[in-house]
Amino acid sequence: MTAKHKIVVIGGTACGPKAAARSRRCDQQADITIIEQTEYVSSATCGFPYYVGGRITQRKSLDVVAPAYFKKNMNINLLSNTRAMEIDRQKQKVRICGVQNGQESWIEYDKLILATGSSPIGLSCEGSKLKGICSLWTMFDALKLRELVDGRKIKSAVFVGAGLIGLEVAEGLVAQGLQVTVVEALDWILPKLIDFEIAAYAERHLKKSGLQIIAGTSVVCFEGEDGWVKKVITDKGKIDADLVVMAIGTRPNVQLAADAGLAIGSLGGINVNLFLRTSDPNIYAGGDCVENVSRITQKKMLAPMGSTANKHGRIIGTNVTGGSETFPGVLGTAVVKLFDYNVGRVGLTQEQAKAEGYDVETCLIPGLDHAAYYPGARKVLLKLIVDKKTGKVLGGQGVGMGDIAKRIDVLATAISFQSTVEDLANLDLAYAPPYNSAIDPVHNAANVIRNKQSGMAKGFVPAEVQKKITAGEDFVLLDVRSPQEKENCYIEASKQTLLIPLPELCTRLAEVPRGTEIIIYCQTSNRAYQALRILKEKGYENVRFLDGSIAAWPYETAGIKPYAEQSGLPIALDNGI
Amino acid sequence: MTAKHKIVVIGGTACGPKAAARSRRCDQQADITIIEQTEYVSSATCGFPYYVGGRITQRKSLDVVAPAYFKKNMNINLLSNTRAMEIDRQKQKVRICGVQNGQESWIEYDKLILATGSSPIGLSCEGSKLKGICSLWTMFDALKLRELVDGRKIKSAVFVGAGLIGLEVAEGLVAQGLQVTVVEALDWILPKLIDFEIAAYAERHLKKSGLQIIAGTSVVCFEGEDGWVKKVITDKGKIDADLVVMAIGTRPNVQLAADAGLAIGSLGGINVNLFLRTSDPNIYAGGDCVENVSRITQKKMLAPMGSTANKHGRIIGTNVTGGSETFPGVLGTAVVKLFDYNVGRVGLTQEQAKAEGYDVETCLIPGLDHAAYYPGARKVLLKLIVDKKTGKVLGGQGVGMGDIAKRIDVLATAISFQSTVEDLANLDLAYAPPYNSAIDPVHNAANVIRNKQSGMAKGFVPAEVQKKITAGEDFVLLDVRSPQEKENCYIEASKQTLLIPLPELCTRLAEVPRGTEIIIYCQTSNRAYQALRILKEKGYENVRFLDGSIAAWPYETAGIKPYAEQSGLPIALDNGI
Repeated sequence: MTAKHKIVVIGGTACGPKAAARSRRCDQQADITIIEQTEYVSSATCGFPYYVGGRITQRKSLDVVAPAYFKKNMNINLLSNTRAMEIDRQKQKVRICGVQNGQESWIEYDKLILATGSSPIGLSCEGSKLKGICSLWTMFDALKLRELVDGRKIKSAVFVGAGLIGLEVAEGLVAQGLQVTVVEALDWILPKLIDFEIAAYAERHLKKSGLQIIAGTSVVCFEGEDGWVKKVITDKGKIDADLVVMAIGTRPNVQLAADAGLAIGSLGGINVNLFLRTSDPNIYAGGDCVENVSRITQKKMLAPMGSTANKHGRIIGTNVTGGSETFPGVLGTAVVKLFDYNVGRVGLTQEQAKAEGYDVETCLIPGLDHAAYYPGARKVLLKLIVDKKTGKVLGGQGVGMGDIAKRIDVLATAISFQSTVEDLANLDLAYAPPYNSAIDPVHNAANVIRNKQSGMAKGFVPAEVQKKITAGEDFVLLDVRSPQEKENCYIEASKQTLLIPLPELCTRLAEVPRGTEIIIYCQTSNRAYQALRILKEKGYENVRFLDGSIAAWPYETAGIKPYAEQSGLPIALDNGI
Repeated sequence: MTAKHKIVVIGGTACGPKAAARSRRCDQQADITIIEQTEYVSSATCGFPYYVGGRITQRKSLDVVAPAYFKKNMNINLLSNTRAMEIDRQKQKVRICGVQNGQESWIEYDKLILATGSSPIGLSCEGSKLKGICSLWTMFDALKLRELVDGRKIKSAVFVGAGLIGLEVAEGLVAQGLQVTVVEALDWILPKLIDFEIAAYAERHLKKSGLQIIAGTSVVCFEGEDGWVKKVITDKGKIDADLVVMAIGTRPNVQLAADAGLAIGSLGGINVNLFLRTSDPNIYAGGDCVENVSRITQKKMLAPMGSTANKHGRIIGTNVTGGSETFPGVLGTAVVKLFDYNVGRVGLTQEQAKAEGYDVETCLIPGLDHAAYYPGARKVLLKLIVDKKTGKVLGGQGVGMGDIAKRIDVLATAISFQSTVEDLANLDLAYAPPYNSAIDPVHNAANVIRNKQSGMAKGFVPAEVQKKITAGEDFVLLDVRSPQEKENCYIEASKQTLLIPLPELCTRLAEVPRGTEIIIYCQTSNRAYQALRILKEKGYENVRFLDGSIAAWPYETAGIKPYAEQSGLPIALDNGI
């Protein structure tokens, strides 16, 4: 070709600049232009919560790549403060408009890249236009919020929605001394990302750290004074608020694409194929504005993540310059720091897996992030979700002060390759006392599932047992710890409870009734599992152990402290199951 | 069967107790006995270095499971202070002997489990029997060493061998104020585990932290005074030493097995099949005493690791009680904490891969363990070793203050599933600013290899460039940083060097000679790579970039500080390649 290959990128945050940079690296001749409606380009949007919360002090830290770098080092034209108004697919050109001067012009393309991102979903209700109600999405939002917080005029903030970003910012504002309340319409925090047991665990810690959480509660409207928000009205009462941050989710920005007649998917994102090409062969799209494919279900899903946007960008850069790369999809992997807790997840939650028609096996594993005998071991609680039929890992979640991110990354990698629990159990992970135990919690989790699958043991998750207790069902709750341990804390049940320390179980069998369901617990389920094996051998058939036992028990009852605060681990914890 | 199933386990450290516990969990009826020659059982041998170094203060912390636990909770007989002397395979019994009273007896088995471990290799030379020369392998060794150190009579210690355990202990003794020297016969530390670039990096840090390292030097003999060691005589001189710790490796304990006529492999370990069964169908073996299989080459290898021993134990426990599980092999994964550095590895080193006949592609990636803009990001240097033909990942190594263990675990998981670099590049790893960057160093490493494979760029590792410099070869070393950056530090070359900042490269092309090999560097190779792409497009054919550039340069020259101490990262580091 004699004329230069013209590549136009719309959107300058993550996918856009990455696609532009990759295009340049693949093609030194191409004429590459990024169109960005703000003055900011290549922004660290994932850093906004920490900027608002004060942990990141300098605004300039949020420029991943300084704007000048593009022209200077990459020979990429950057049209900031410029909005893309319309795509003329026939003539392969984009109408653009200067945000400050309103001047319009057309820019031609051979290949067009849409990286238009996503926008926060707002609430349309009474008072929703009051000042002091905002979201945290753009650099502008971040600056405004930080200014409000720094101004010290805000005393109380309400976050609507307990998603990732909401919680990240909320945590930062608590640290700034604000009274912060998170209102979540669904039943627990991060409801689309983690299951109840993990969320309940995190919630207790958040509340203890000073964050108010009101779940299962919907915001109805807002009340203000002099045009500024003052109260949030929920279906369960009023909450004072000088500041309201809307964090109920985002939706892909597809107007430009839709107006141009490009195919939009049923989830509201731009429809792209494996090559990240839209329905127009000369237009590619990536980042938050497109629909992704789940690597587990192969179904479309929305997964707005900076990490995914960057991967998209590289692939698009390759493909618009003559390459041919495909994107295999996502796992919805996520991790978040909430005070000194780490919460992570990957794949399907138990609920999502069930909704997909899987018959699932799960487990709850209380563990330590490194060898108990090496100073500084911190607790982790892992959950694994597995397809009962094939043994394939469908998802995993973790919470605790210990290193969760590593375990989630191992699970994400394993799931990418259709790992079974047997594969997982035999992974040769890096072992040394400062980093993990000889048997990593991931190994332990896989082995517990294998025990369940082989029929060696059945478990109940805490919610199932709590439901039975609440319903007054007829079963025996058997504690196999020592009397001293019981004195410290125990699970309250309205019906029959028994305390028989494991070493005495064989000789005190007569005390364990036959014909009634027996649910066994101890501190972490290790001894409960051994007790279950004994009872089964003695002919008891209706026996289960409580998954994670006291360590994973999320309800506040009879002196049970959160796992993180429990002192003393059972000696055999490290020995696995 | 009417008589109880008799399971006898020889060895009470890791594999043995695990096999016994798993056997019990699978079979409540079995008669299970552990024979252990010391008084210690289920010891945290991996904790010994930290006990000697003082980081673990209490000896009792080193009991993973208290001896009483076995009988009390698991109904497992524990014969401690008892040595297995002979196996009578015909009559299925083991002759045992009380270590303290010398009393002998026979114990019958239906299934026998050998978990006899390994022993440190000693040196037979003049003075090798002197007092003060020891190894760190048993609890007895640990107690003795700790006592010596606590007694404060030891001022200088020499470690013979720079392997994992030697370095772990040496590091601890430096912290205790001792003058510590490590003598390694091969050319760098951890020579069988990591390649030169990673080792050189770690070595600089170790030396800076007060540990003397003398590589490429062999110990000839020892000199003493009053029967106590005083000097280590090497082929390059004498070193004062009140204490010598032998750490040149271990060998499997197979005497008992060999005497019984069980098959021993060519590497000196007990030969077991996938079920961990020896050549006798009633005898299983696991842990340090057996030969493992490499999951990469499918060849036998020795991999004495507590993590592997525990996995073996579980599988053996399953199999001796009627189950049928297999062990897929190991990757030689390892991680070690050396002062505030983390060093990790998995799979084949570059040398090992070459020796196996692979045509390898490698890369050196200087990165950060989390987003640069989030406080506390720490540096990591990753190396990836890939099969050029298939793109399959063969191995990975990392060093730095940042989180290496996580990346090694991701690589270990990926390699287990025959991951290619393309698979690796698209892993949906958990991303949030406190945990990593949108593009993890693992992704970056995979992408750099892909660039090399596709022919977009070729690299030289530091050693190759240094060799050319030393040999006075004719090439141009092109620095594309700013003059200010060069003032700070640069790579000295005897022949032609050029400084042309990347933004000026296109206009100053005339200065870059044609027909000569050009090697480009910058701070982390990001700009060097871009410069290379420009030169290639301009018709330069013989161009390479220096892998990892200044950040990964391991030689002490012209003000180049170790990566960890370099201030300021290039702005575009995060944007990947």
